[in-house]
Parts: sequence; C-alpha cells; structure tokens
Amino acid sequence: MVYQHKLSVTTPGRGTVNVTDDIQRQVAAAGIDTGVCNVFLHHTSASLILCENADPTVRRDLEAFMQRLAPDGDPLFKHTDEGPDDMPAHVRSIVTHNSLSLPVTNGRCGLGVWQGVYLYEHRYAPHTRRLTVTVYG
Amino acid sequence: MVYQHKLSVTTPGRGTVNVTDDIQRQVAAAGIDTGVCNVFLHHTSASLILCENADPTVRRDLEAFMQRLAPDGDPLFKHTDEGPDDMPAHVRSIVTHNSLSLPVTNGRCGLGVWQGVYLYEHRYAPHTRRLTVTVYG
Amino acid sequence: MVYQHKLSVTTPGRGTVNVTDDIQRQVAAAGIDTGVCNVFLHHTSASLILCENADPTVRRDLEAFMQRLAPDGDPLFKHTDEGPDDMPAHVRSIVTHNSLSLPVTNGRCGLGVWQGVYLYEHRYAPHTRRLTVTVYG
Repeated sequence: MVYQHKLSVTTPGRGTVNVTDDIQRQVAAAGIDTGVCNVFLHHTSASLILCENADPTVRRDLEAFMQRLAPDGDPLFKHTDEGPDDMPAHVRSIVTHNSLSLPVTNGRCGLGVWQGVYLYEHRYAPHTRRLTVTVYG
Repeated sequence: MVYQHKLSVTTPGRGTVNVTDDIQRQVAAAGIDTGVCNVFLHHTSASLILCENADPTVRRDLEAFMQRLAPDGDPLFKHTDEGPDDMPAHVRSIVTHNSLSLPVTNGRCGLGVWQGVYLYEHRYAPHTRRLTVTVYG
Repeated sequence: MVYQHKLSVTTPGRGTVNVTDDIQRQVAAAGIDTGVCNVFLHHTSASLILCENADPTVRRDLEAFMQRLAPDGDPLFKHTDEGPDDMPAHVRSIVTHNSLSLPVTNGRCGLGVWQGVYLYEHRYAPHTRRLTVTVYG
C-alpha cells in the first residue's frame, strides 16, 4: 500500500523550521500501521535534518558550525550568481540530507524522543519549499 | 510485505560498532527475497555509516577527521549541558546518517564487498542505542 | 510491487557523472506509478549526491570544498595504502550519501527542476562502479 502527498513549507529565510507535525499528519492520513515514511525535498539550497528538538541552542550552534564550514562569500566559490549564500547553500544541502526515510510503527513515525524533523533553509531570503511525503507498508 | 523489528545496541562510548550481522539477521528473518531494508537510529548524538570494513585504520582516521571538523569543547558551541562532547555529537550525527536504506537481493542486504554498516557512537560515555529495522518488498 | 535492477557506471576518475537519465530509465522500466526509487552505490570511495544540474561551476566549487575539507595527502590520515586520495575518498563518501530514496510520481522520479542525481567519484583513477536501483510502490 502506498500513500503520497505533496506539501509546501514557507521559510522565513535561513534557519530551521520544525516539520515533524506536518509529517505525522501525513502518516496519520495514510492509514498505514507498519512501514516507512519517505520525506523528500525538491531543492538543492535547502535540506532536511533530524535534530535534537528540546534546546534551540543546538540549532543555533549547528548554524554557527555550517557558517564556519562553508562561509558565505567564501572566495573558494566561483558560483555566486545569486549572492554570497548561493554556493554555501548547495554545500550545506549536500552534507546534510534531501531525503529522510523514517520507520512507521503503530500508525506514526517512530522517532526518538529527542528527534525532530527540520527543514533547513540555507538561503537568506524566504522561500516556498516543496516536499513529497510517501508512506508505504 | 513488511517486516519490522526493533533492536538495541550497547556502545562502549565513542567509536564504531559493526552492526552488519545484526541487520543481515533481521533481513533473513523477514523472509523477503527482493526489496529494501531501512535501518533507523532513534538518537541525535550517534549515527549510522557505511564504511570500509577491512582496515580498522579507516575508522581511526575517520574519528580523527571528525574531531578536527567539530572539536570537543569548541568555543563555537554554546550547547554544552552534557559536556564538551555534547554539541559535537549532534553535528557529527547530522553530517553522517540516522537512516540507511539498503537493497535486499536474494534474501540478503546486497552490500558491496568492502561495505560494513556501523553504529557510530559520538558521546564519550557508553550508551544503549535503539534501532528499528524495516524490510519491505 | 518491487522492481530491482543492477547497473554499472564507468567513471573517468575524480569528479561527478550525471546518472539521472539512467535512473529515470529504470523507473520507466519498473512500470510503477506511485512509490519510491532507492538508488544504492556498492562502494566506500565514491558516493551519490543530489546537486544543482544547470551550472557546472557548482560541481567545480563542490570539489574545491571537498579538497579543503579532507585534503589529499593530509598527514592526519594513516590509511594511505592506495595513495593520497584513499582516506579522503572514504571521508567524502561518508559525509555525502551511498543511498538515495527518491519519490516516484506519475511513473517518474519526481525530482525538483534543478536537481540531478550524480555519482561522485572520489578516487583519481577511473573505476567501474556498481549501483542497485530498487523501485517499489
């Protein structure tokens, strides 16, 4: 059995948006008791992460880490068509995830207590980001 | 057809634990000839990797790399509630994987000859880590 | 329903090879309208990425980033059996992906407009790399 649903998430610019509830709603709608939920992001300058969901400082520190790893305006990068955050956004996307496969157990995504699913916007500007959620089992 | 099983792995603290055989056992128990096996780790301070399985020096070097990438006690990090390895563990988890989807062929995970599945503990202290293995096909 | 096919891709040495069309062909052959396509690479010194597919400079910059992240011949690495690109290849593989799960919609991989699937060869020498594509739905 397969259930698939597309959704859009509007981001306020760089930073993380908790999409755990959006995904749990789709898993509930799927009516599948046991299986897997695949969450896919159709972009190369934003990404998906599983991150600690209790202390917002974790996501602040993660952002500081990413800025050090691939600094905005880094002279290493020649692809700057859309500004200093253009190529760093692609790098951040590649070293994190565009696709997450999560177990479905008892009709829900069986995440750990401290795990949240976050859409990580890497561009400065707000964007509307498209996701496809596919549940099968 | 879907088969799902939960397992626990006890880690001796930071480092890698080869869980390939644990996963192959679940795939055998599933009795599914052709499909996919999803392995999911329910934590944000440990992760899953596919790594070269012949020379332990590869995993020693990987650990050295991770320590340089996100040093323990790095002053960049403010989230230090659980010690100098707290935030580095979250970063290591995010730049590696919490979910691996592996092909099932002829009733086994069809890994490459040199590929092993490792649970990578990023905290100093021993932990009991929970995994869910879902096989479908 | 499950469809599985193995394919080989010959790389010219370090760099990216666009395999999007190879995967779309397998999804078409699968005859599955709605589901997920898992692409798995059976190696630990090459990897799979979803990357911007319009400007080749993005992949040039990504390569420059990876060389800075894990330099060839880095004295940090002791595993140098196969040369200065040996351990950097393993690191690059682990911080990117060996397995990608992509949604299948209307009988095709539903990628974003700017998303391409690339096999990223991390070794200097040409290699023949094995992939397994599994489509289910």
